[in-house]
Amino acid sequence: MSSIKHHFPDAFPVTDDCLHIGGMPLTRLARRVGGSFYAYDRRLLSERVKHVRSMLPDGVHVHYAMKANPMPAVVQHMATIVDGIDVASRRELKVALDTTISAEEVSFAGPGKSECDLESAIAAGIVLNLESNLEMERAARIGHELGCRPKAAVRVNPDFELKSSGMKMGGGSKQFGVDAEEVPEMLRRMKNLDIEFMGFHIFSGSQNLKSEAIIEAQEKSVDLGIRLAQHAPSPLKILNIGGGFGIPYFPGEMPLDLAPVGEKLGNLMPKVESEMPGAHVVIELGRYLVGEAGIYVTPVIDRKISRGKVFLVTAGGLNHHLAASGNFGQVIRKNYPVAVGNRMNGKEREIVSVVGPLCTPLDILAESMEMAKAEVGDLIVVFQSGAYGATASPTAFLSQPDVTEVLV
Amino acid sequence: MSSIKHHFPDAFPVTDDCLHIGGMPLTRLARRVGGSFYAYDRRLLSERVKHVRSMLPDGVHVHYAMKANPMPAVVQHMATIVDGIDVASRRELKVALDTTISAEEVSFAGPGKSECDLESAIAAGIVLNLESNLEMERAARIGHELGCRPKAAVRVNPDFELKSSGMKMGGGSKQFGVDAEEVPEMLRRMKNLDIEFMGFHIFSGSQNLKSEAIIEAQEKSVDLGIRLAQHAPSPLKILNIGGGFGIPYFPGEMPLDLAPVGEKLGNLMPKVESEMPGAHVVIELGRYLVGEAGIYVTPVIDRKISRGKVFLVTAGGLNHHLAASGNFGQVIRKNYPVAVGNRMNGKEREIVSVVGPLCTPLDILAESMEMAKAEVGDLIVVFQSGAYGATASPTAFLSQPDVTEVLV
Repeated sequence: MSSIKHHFPDAFPVTDDCLHIGGMPLTRLARRVGGSFYAYDRRLLSERVKHVRSMLPDGVHVHYAMKANPMPAVVQHMATIVDGIDVASRRELKVALDTTISAEEVSFAGPGKSECDLESAIAAGIVLNLESNLEMERAARIGHELGCRPKAAVRVNPDFELKSSGMKMGGGSKQFGVDAEEVPEMLRRMKNLDIEFMGFHIFSGSQNLKSEAIIEAQEKSVDLGIRLAQHAPSPLKILNIGGGFGIPYFPGEMPLDLAPVGEKLGNLMPKVESEMPGAHVVIELGRYLVGEAGIYVTPVIDRKISRGKVFLVTAGGLNHHLAASGNFGQVIRKNYPVAVGNRMNGKEREIVSVVGPLCTPLDILAESMEMAKAEVGDLIVVFQSGAYGATASPTAFLSQPDVTEVLV
Repeated sequence: MSSIKHHFPDAFPVTDDCLHIGGMPLTRLARRVGGSFYAYDRRLLSERVKHVRSMLPDGVHVHYAMKANPMPAVVQHMATIVDGIDVASRRELKVALDTTISAEEVSFAGPGKSECDLESAIAAGIVLNLESNLEMERAARIGHELGCRPKAAVRVNPDFELKSSGMKMGGGSKQFGVDAEEVPEMLRRMKNLDIEFMGFHIFSGSQNLKSEAIIEAQEKSVDLGIRLAQHAPSPLKILNIGGGFGIPYFPGEMPLDLAPVGEKLGNLMPKVESEMPGAHVVIELGRYLVGEAGIYVTPVIDRKISRGKVFLVTAGGLNHHLAASGNFGQVIRKNYPVAVGNRMNGKEREIVSVVGPLCTPLDILAESMEMAKAEVGDLIVVFQSGAYGATASPTAFLSQPDVTEVLV
């Protein structure tokens, strides 16, 4: 046990000791939905986008990377408040195109796009983020077959890394994008192909809580974009400098301070406008827009004491929320912020481990955490669960009941 | 790079440089199935069960823990060659009951059984492995409501651990089963309930490659069973001493030597027969029966060189095979045995990283491994993939294409 505390979100009101979401007590929502579920709060999604816009310079476009949460209702809502959507597969593309967003504002990134993926994307008229020379040639061929001129940006593997990043997506040898130093040659080849050049996608990493690291990456991305633009077959329309904004999950982590990020990006804008007239800067965010707006909820099925240690056994576990179990990209398992949703301020406290129903010791939602003393039927809540939850989990594992997702 | 090599299975024949499975070249099977797929070999499943039986003493029952691979066709096949099936959920129960196995030979373990789970199990007449006092009381109540007397074994959390085990499931404080020292009291309570006592389920761990560790756990399990049997309300019918037999995945790991395990268990049998007349010993195996009979296959979509490093980008990755990506219970990522299925002995070799199509650096199937030089369209094969594959993976992640499973 550490004295370092979780940063619990204060976005969800508590009344009569019970968490509220979407204007309803959690206990009532749990009856409405049944079983284990994710709940996402529409108000919090809107507030977050508004907050991001208020912090970023005017004219910067905010895109939603829907892989973070592809629930169709969430995407429908996000489409009304962001400037564009990034998709990572053909099925995500379908969901994005079912919204009111225009095809030109949809982009498609991913290192392994299939022929089907490319065909759908080109037929739809969205922007492909090209990840290799081979992909560019395929796109040109398919565009020719379809009689549709592909719109394409080049995804650049930069020659720098996003420091202190939860996941590094650029710098060094990577499967993502085209090495920066190879881009001029690729752009030269593009001139001989029937492709509409849109711009660059420069994405260096994700889940970063340090303003300075993000500022540095943004400055380097803008510089790299300007440098590469000299080789472009036509003026840039888009300079997507990625996102990388993180949210606090673990004890001791604090929210990202966006103010200096926005301020420094503002300082870069005159340079962008003079060097790339007509291009707009895109910030692409997934987790940062949706992560804190969602909770995972699962009822307690059993309460056991084994050799002095208290276990709460819940109806769902890693099959619904792999990341909270510590099995998705974490080297050392740490607890997400977890609480008893219907006993938020419960005076009687205890140290418990919350485990899911699976026959595996990996199925842990909270390891030796202090929370209100819970009984069978109480509702365990995992906060910071709006991103990379249901779809990033092995929901068929042990053929346990599915998890429901609701937008409230 | 290490000089320590993978133990590649020799079960799949290679003809004309191409792996064969189910009597068919992999290239042809890939056309039959399409996309990325798991293929399980019926012959290898049968041979493995036969081998296990030949190594174990007469009279020991072999059960299949279907959570390792719940594909209905696989379970149908297994049901014809094993003595019983262990299920971990209501949906697994349905699949087991759809086979020819009799309900009495089906058992249900899991620390978080819901009311629905218990109701199905009791109505079916299968054997519940009770994990707590509360679960026992629930079972008795539901049995009373249904007018069906529940059959139940007690799952025991032993007072020892399975040494050198991939996953420890017993010993110390655990969510699984009832602490050994609490079992006598539980059995006393059971006498007052309308429950048919069947025996004990003592499971200490899984994925173990050391004969000595398994032998030690089996000896201790038998002793514990005999000790606890003195408190039983009626003579034992079942003493399930678990399994824990592992298969080699990583460089340097060697197959488990079953001969001494069988021999030592044979030495224990007279004691079991004299102390528990009429009881049969059950060995419950999942991964060991199916793991080596299956491969995961995914085509190469792109071949990229980034700053001197070769990447093969495949159509499927961690969304289909989480364990091979190193994100399922591994602390340090290690490579599964991976090869180019249509160039098994390819003379031109190179060091490559095989990555899936997802926009995350976690999506790795092989990191800097030597294999035959591959081209777009070649088939990457991940061996040792018959257990904890498709259902243990986040198949909805990024809404990429599903993985198909075939039994050949």
